[in-house]
Amino acid sequence: MDDAVLSRRSLIATGAVGLAVPAIGAAVALTGGAAKAGATRKITIWAEALPGGLFGYGLAPGQATVPGPLLEMYEGDTLEITLVNTTNQRLSIHAHGVDYSTTSDGSPLHGSYNNPGEIRTYVWRSREMSAAAGRRFMPGSAGYWHYHDHAMGTDHGTGGVAKGLYGALIVRRRGDILPDKQFTVVFHDMTINNKAAPNTPMFEANLGQRVEWVAIGHGNLFHTFHLHAHRWVDNRTGMLESVSDPSPTVDNKDLNPGSSFGFQVIAGEGVGPGAWMYHCHVQNHSDGGMAGLFLVRNADGSMPPGAEEAIHRFQGHAHTTTSTDTDDHGGHGA
Amino acid sequence: MDDAVLSRRSLIATGAVGLAVPAIGAAVALTGGAAKAGATRKITIWAEALPGGLFGYGLAPGQATVPGPLLEMYEGDTLEITLVNTTNQRLSIHAHGVDYSTTSDGSPLHGSYNNPGEIRTYVWRSREMSAAAGRRFMPGSAGYWHYHDHAMGTDHGTGGVAKGLYGALIVRRRGDILPDKQFTVVFHDMTINNKAAPNTPMFEANLGQRVEWVAIGHGNLFHTFHLHAHRWVDNRTGMLESVSDPSPTVDNKDLNPGSSFGFQVIAGEGVGPGAWMYHCHVQNHSDGGMAGLFLVRNADGSMPPGAEEAIHRFQGHAHTTTSTDTDDHGGHGA
Amino acid sequence: MDDAVLSRRSLIATGAVGLAVPAIGAAVALTGGAAKAGATRKITIWAEALPGGLFGYGLAPGQATVPGPLLEMYEGDTLEITLVNTTNQRLSIHAHGVDYSTTSDGSPLHGSYNNPGEIRTYVWRSREMSAAAGRRFMPGSAGYWHYHDHAMGTDHGTGGVAKGLYGALIVRRRGDILPDKQFTVVFHDMTINNKAAPNTPMFEANLGQRVEWVAIGHGNLFHTFHLHAHRWVDNRTGMLESVSDPSPTVDNKDLNPGSSFGFQVIAGEGVGPGAWMYHCHVQNHSDGGMAGLFLVRNADGSMPPGAEEAIHRFQGHAHTTTSTDTDDHGGHGA
Repeated sequence: MDDAVLSRRSLIATGAVGLAVPAIGAAVALTGGAAKAGATRKITIWAEALPGGLFGYGLAPGQATVPGPLLEMYEGDTLEITLVNTTNQRLSIHAHGVDYSTTSDGSPLHGSYNNPGEIRTYVWRSREMSAAAGRRFMPGSAGYWHYHDHAMGTDHGTGGVAKGLYGALIVRRRGDILPDKQFTVVFHDMTINNKAAPNTPMFEANLGQRVEWVAIGHGNLFHTFHLHAHRWVDNRTGMLESVSDPSPTVDNKDLNPGSSFGFQVIAGEGVGPGAWMYHCHVQNHSDGGMAGLFLVRNADGSMPPGAEEAIHRFQGHAHTTTSTDTDDHGGHGA
Repeated sequence: MDDAVLSRRSLIATGAVGLAVPAIGAAVALTGGAAKAGATRKITIWAEALPGGLFGYGLAPGQATVPGPLLEMYEGDTLEITLVNTTNQRLSIHAHGVDYSTTSDGSPLHGSYNNPGEIRTYVWRSREMSAAAGRRFMPGSAGYWHYHDHAMGTDHGTGGVAKGLYGALIVRRRGDILPDKQFTVVFHDMTINNKAAPNTPMFEANLGQRVEWVAIGHGNLFHTFHLHAHRWVDNRTGMLESVSDPSPTVDNKDLNPGSSFGFQVIAGEGVGPGAWMYHCHVQNHSDGGMAGLFLVRNADGSMPPGAEEAIHRFQGHAHTTTSTDTDDHGGHGA
Repeated sequence: MDDAVLSRRSLIATGAVGLAVPAIGAAVALTGGAAKAGATRKITIWAEALPGGLFGYGLAPGQATVPGPLLEMYEGDTLEITLVNTTNQRLSIHAHGVDYSTTSDGSPLHGSYNNPGEIRTYVWRSREMSAAAGRRFMPGSAGYWHYHDHAMGTDHGTGGVAKGLYGALIVRRRGDILPDKQFTVVFHDMTINNKAAPNTPMFEANLGQRVEWVAIGHGNLFHTFHLHAHRWVDNRTGMLESVSDPSPTVDNKDLNPGSSFGFQVIAGEGVGPGAWMYHCHVQNHSDGGMAGLFLVRNADGSMPPGAEEAIHRFQGHAHTTTSTDTDDHGGHGA
């Protein structure tokens, strides 16, 4: 995975942040160090068939996941991706948010894809904001973006997206606050990361950790992402950029096909540890299985009171009919 | 209703603002006064069965409404809600935007609900923004939020939401401008506040009054909220926070399940009084009955010219086929 | 078309900007000059039946298009529109974002429409922001808005919207940057500007031109607008209003019925010329024909390498099944 390690150049970088969550997808982390701006990093991604008819991207042979690895870069950097297609399907990798020429577009329109067995290089560049007129600037590339197949099944990659060929891409602006943990959540038709409850990801953090979420929408349905007991600002970073930042604070946000957003929360801040739910707030989607757990452990990593019971309930409940666990809840009182 | 009255501590508070609209839902208003920050207010809410198979929340026995009472608090305050379940159904109250421990989550996941006949206390805390790094802040609780059942019918409260167990919750930042009137609009499947045209709410204000709208989405369908002849800024308050606030101005906004937003307009400003429409802009939703009237009376409260006729047309029209009132309109000319 | 020419009063206006794109819809351009603020401009719009059962608005007899002409004004101006209904249907013109009295609402509710053969005048006013309290302002009219029929078929104009009676309306704030070219894109049910691929509009610009997009949603379905290789800021102008503007940068945005947004990009900046795709990112919508091309030519207007081939592929591909052009793509390599 050495060639998958990007250089971390943040002014505020520390060695401890930006860790991958292997169960969810190995991250291409921005590592400590002080590489110069405008660096080009080269990584290799393997597209592989997975059990259950799925496909995934991975940073090493046999390590493909759904979603694929979280990729990160700083504004100004270039990411050169050598995509190895180990499958028997036409596929590609198409990025949102970054700069690419037509040959790296990832679309059949430009013949920009890998035939079965082929190896092809895609180049993603990024940039800082640039002056427009007056005080205005044309935007840089910073954002919570994503990448996905654009060639399997149809010319828009509908087959590849349906089967798991997607992942998160973060382009950071220098000075951005780096997180302790990172989670990728893809709302895709009636699934989360192509899974339905109770098999959806259980994301874990310790009380007080800075957790970064990247939420991505795919497929044919509309969704809204809701996180219990935590909230964020609906702007670029999820934090108020100053005391006069006019952006609204939200805990529920539209997450529709091709869109993405990200934010950071302090796990359990003001609410304590627990097995907090995240789910689609479209009622028949949450009832149908679009729900998962954000397990906030105690600061020392131990399980907080009640969390085991909540996880047990989550894993057991049918999610489509009236729960039958009406007798085992406690804590009632006036 | 004494215990339902919160203390208003705004620097700009006056005695005349924040009035409830009884026909729509009794508000827990922020009353005049100068209580200290961080106050805890205790209220009791009754969950009751209503005619037509509906359920509602109310601030006194026999006074449940759909939507429930508009609740308000200032950042830093705590709201302690004693929920009395007078129904024969399992139900709860789950809030967006505020802080709560797992026992006040309102979800069966945490056993946080009322069995039939039970009384249970839910505690909602709020907070001001807090420094993050650089000039950045983690957000406070201020926002146009909402609350709803999370336990009736399914573990996500789909049955309770479908039958009317929802309402608005406003958390204000100190210094926020307070309105003269407040309306709650819930777009819920093919209804507005569980009603279809022409039985949807007719909201009323006098020309020049500062009117606050809280718009909430629920259910299984996607919607867009459109208000005729008025517009607002798509940020936290609905107003430009400074001359350089970059937020867009809108008069049509996505209103999807679990989301909410709010804004203030000056009734009839620049357009005059009249029976202005608000409606879902999805065409088969508006045609199907997701439309209502915002009656802006003259400044003295009298009816403006043409308003009676418009109300008459609204109440009579079929809303699903070509209108037949092609002969009774006037004012044509080149 | 003389009466359709508005006065351009921008501080930064030049003679070369704001050009219409005749193939898409004649624009009511803000022309060079220095007319005073608060001017009233009078235009005439003809509503006409078009081939294929469509209807359109036009600035001269026989020139109706789908979408209708792009209309522009500056904050403070008034637009007085004389609508000539040459059809055998009841219809109107209803605007978003601007001020109008009930008689110019464009809705049957207020008898504000044209019967077949009738001529009727609609008045749209606009305004600058106005002080509210503290540093706050009530918004002005500036925005990327739109207009549409509100009377054909149903009282919400569902028939007129379905058949093409819609267009873009831009209200500019003084000092706004003016573009070199302008495109209107309407996502309407399964079509773009009532057309499906490969017959969707091919928008053209030369490398480096400042191109303004106005995106509008209509109908009954939800959509997301995606533009390849270009991005914009999700705020009023699409540009960062200052180095500390907190708005996110996006390249995919919800575009639902009744909503609109706009932005400017520098054609091909950082990515080069090419036949770039724009499309709905809902997968079965893009596969079903909601895709088009943004042809960025070389700076001298000549065709860039590969563009002809891409256009050929786009025009030939079925867009609903697996592409068969698996053999004709090039540029592969490790």
